Amino acid sequence: MTARPANAHQARLLRLLRDGGPNSRAQLGDRVDLSRSKLAVEVDRLLETGLVVADGLAASRGGRRSHNIRLAPQLRFLGVDIGATSIDVAVTNAELEILGHINQPMDVRDGPVAVFEQVLSMAAKLKASGLAEGFDGAGIGVPGPVRFPEGVPVAPPIMPGWDGFPVREALSQELGCPVMVDNDVNLMAMGEQHAGVARSVGDFLCVKIGTGIGCGIVVGGEVHRGTTGSAGDIGHILAVPDGRPCACGNRGCLEAHFSGAALARDAKEAAQQGLSAELASRLETNGTLTAVDVAAAAAAGDATALDLIREGGNRTGQVIAGLVSFFNPGLVVIGGGVTGLGHTLLAAIRTQVYRQSLPLATGNLPIVLGELGPTAGVIGAARLISDHLFSPA
Amino acid sequence: MTARPANAHQARLLRLLRDGGPNSRAQLGDRVDLSRSKLAVEVDRLLETGLVVADGLAASRGGRRSHNIRLAPQLRFLGVDIGATSIDVAVTNAELEILGHINQPMDVRDGPVAVFEQVLSMAAKLKASGLAEGFDGAGIGVPGPVRFPEGVPVAPPIMPGWDGFPVREALSQELGCPVMVDNDVNLMAMGEQHAGVARSVGDFLCVKIGTGIGCGIVVGGEVHRGTTGSAGDIGHILAVPDGRPCACGNRGCLEAHFSGAALARDAKEAAQQGLSAELASRLETNGTLTAVDVAAAAAAGDATALDLIREGGNRTGQVIAGLVSFFNPGLVVIGGGVTGLGHTLLAAIRTQVYRQSLPLATGNLPIVLGELGPTAGVIGAARLISDHLFSPA
Repeated sequence: MTARPANAHQARLLRLLRDGGPNSRAQLGDRVDLSRSKLAVEVDRLLETGLVVADGLAASRGGRRSHNIRLAPQLRFLGVDIGATSIDVAVTNAELEILGHINQPMDVRDGPVAVFEQVLSMAAKLKASGLAEGFDGAGIGVPGPVRFPEGVPVAPPIMPGWDGFPVREALSQELGCPVMVDNDVNLMAMGEQHAGVARSVGDFLCVKIGTGIGCGIVVGGEVHRGTTGSAGDIGHILAVPDGRPCACGNRGCLEAHFSGAALARDAKEAAQQGLSAELASRLETNGTLTAVDVAAAAAAGDATALDLIREGGNRTGQVIAGLVSFFNPGLVVIGGGVTGLGHTLLAAIRTQVYRQSLPLATGNLPIVLGELGPTAGVIGAARLISDHLFSPA
Repeated sequence: MTARPANAHQARLLRLLRDGGPNSRAQLGDRVDLSRSKLAVEVDRLLETGLVVADGLAASRGGRRSHNIRLAPQLRFLGVDIGATSIDVAVTNAELEILGHINQPMDVRDGPVAVFEQVLSMAAKLKASGLAEGFDGAGIGVPGPVRFPEGVPVAPPIMPGWDGFPVREALSQELGCPVMVDNDVNLMAMGEQHAGVARSVGDFLCVKIGTGIGCGIVVGGEVHRGTTGSAGDIGHILAVPDGRPCACGNRGCLEAHFSGAALARDAKEAAQQGLSAELASRLETNGTLTAVDVAAAAAAGDATALDLIREGGNRTGQVIAGLVSFFNPGLVVIGGGVTGLGHTLLAAIRTQVYRQSLPLATGNLPIVLGELGPTAGVIGAARLISDHLFSPA
């Protein structure tokens, strides 16, 4: 796809078709507030670019029947969500529906060269399955701050070897299509906004609790990335004065007390101290413990595992309470690997927020789990590149 | 003034003239990206409305000399900043220059009827001095959350009797002009943005420490008010686990540990416990202590007063550090009554933020005192109503 919309009207039409699916000229005209003749001009130009195609007659609205149009069905976006320990790659159509999705374990600390080799082989696998002949654009999420205009990670704490690596440029060359890069948490927020629990919410927070912890911030429907791209970096907010040492050099950061990594550490400590037979037996079997083991132990009624989740939820809830007072969002979404901890975690977070923040901010504030699970990131990635491509060139 | 701009181009021209002063047609044309003929049409229409006037010939740019235009010099805005314990009222021209400014003590708990009587008498005094024949619009700041579209305070903790009072409607009738109402902290942020230290900064935080403590949030040049108008309500963020009881019913809120009121309370305790001869003598003389006394004692080298300021700055800095990690602003402005505490306070806040937040967020982050002092609020109020009036009707 080399064509781009020529003006803001065309961009708006493309986004409406992306978000709402096939539609009649008449209904699109109502939504973009263009006269019938101006609309016809813009739609005809879009048809010429091949970005949209005619799609049969629409249901009658009383007069002459209007033609349906839709985004070209052969358009393909690649969504890539690079986590700390695994990669998700998906291919979508231009309406951001997932046509194929694969997940593989990987260690982001292996560095960009090794990781991209794996990404490209996963993308090739999706192509080979006949889902795409090529990609019209790709969105990439990485687990660290990104200098957004250039698509370059900056000083990412858990990604040694990635600092300053030209992700956008390198992948654009390899894939032969436009690429946009963002923080994985921002992509999760965009995914939940596009197809998940945050649809139609203008201002919301999306807290991702995985290996680390971060927050996507959406203001007026747009992701807020901050002055240097580090907005939402809530893992290093002070949660426990003089608390546990953190990798950043401070003590008591939220991430040092609750995250996938902290939970695994605490569970191992508990198992070794003989506090939980359930965790000890899992540790003996697997040689290690992860958040998944804690979730399983909690589901089996293990009191220690439940305590760990509750305590982590309380810490996280205290920090979120502060963010709610500050930002006054319309919704808080909790997502990421530890959502397997489910309603125990959610209950602890809710209790803290509803107790600590003022009623005016929490009166109508839903705090919910994300709906999309591991697909949030790849849908967000496809949305990111489509936002770019469906903008005036 | 009943005229309003008829379209977005005219609105843009009015704001350019407000923010940049008199300008030539040629230069305005460069700024709004309109063709010479279209610009001429819009400027002529604005001249017809009386909102702008011709203002002599501009300096030559090589061809025919261009006419200067400017906002009508007789336009007058009223800026009102209602604090917890005093009122500031100012009259400005359409370029938001203060022509006259008066301040009077007042207790916001006297309720809206008494307070507005005083506001109207202060406005009448400014009129009587010949600064204005009438007002073309008024901006009003109140020390609590506001349902912005309606201009109505909602559940304001320190303003009993104001909940749901139709401030906008009532004052609009009394003054006979359009009125807009906002939280006082948002107006301080807008004032510093228009004429103070935050000029040309898109994303910044403006922390106001007065009787209470609050934060104005500017995202992409616009004030972020939140879903229910309570954004920036940082006074009730947990600062000290199991700390001092707060008026909101929780313990350890920032405002319970540092604010004008908390500082006065702590200073009185210190004086009564014999910890500071300086504060004790001021307490005996005045019968009470305020933040001003603490500032004076600190300036005189009193160790207890300096400790109180430092400790408060540390608490505030810890909370701001969390907001910096979350929001990644380009600037943090500290303003309000306690800026009399000056550089001791600022040093404590900076130390905490630079220590706790990650380098990526703080590397180029200035943390500075506001430039405008008590005029920030009234300039922000004038800016608020001018933004409204200089929008398409």
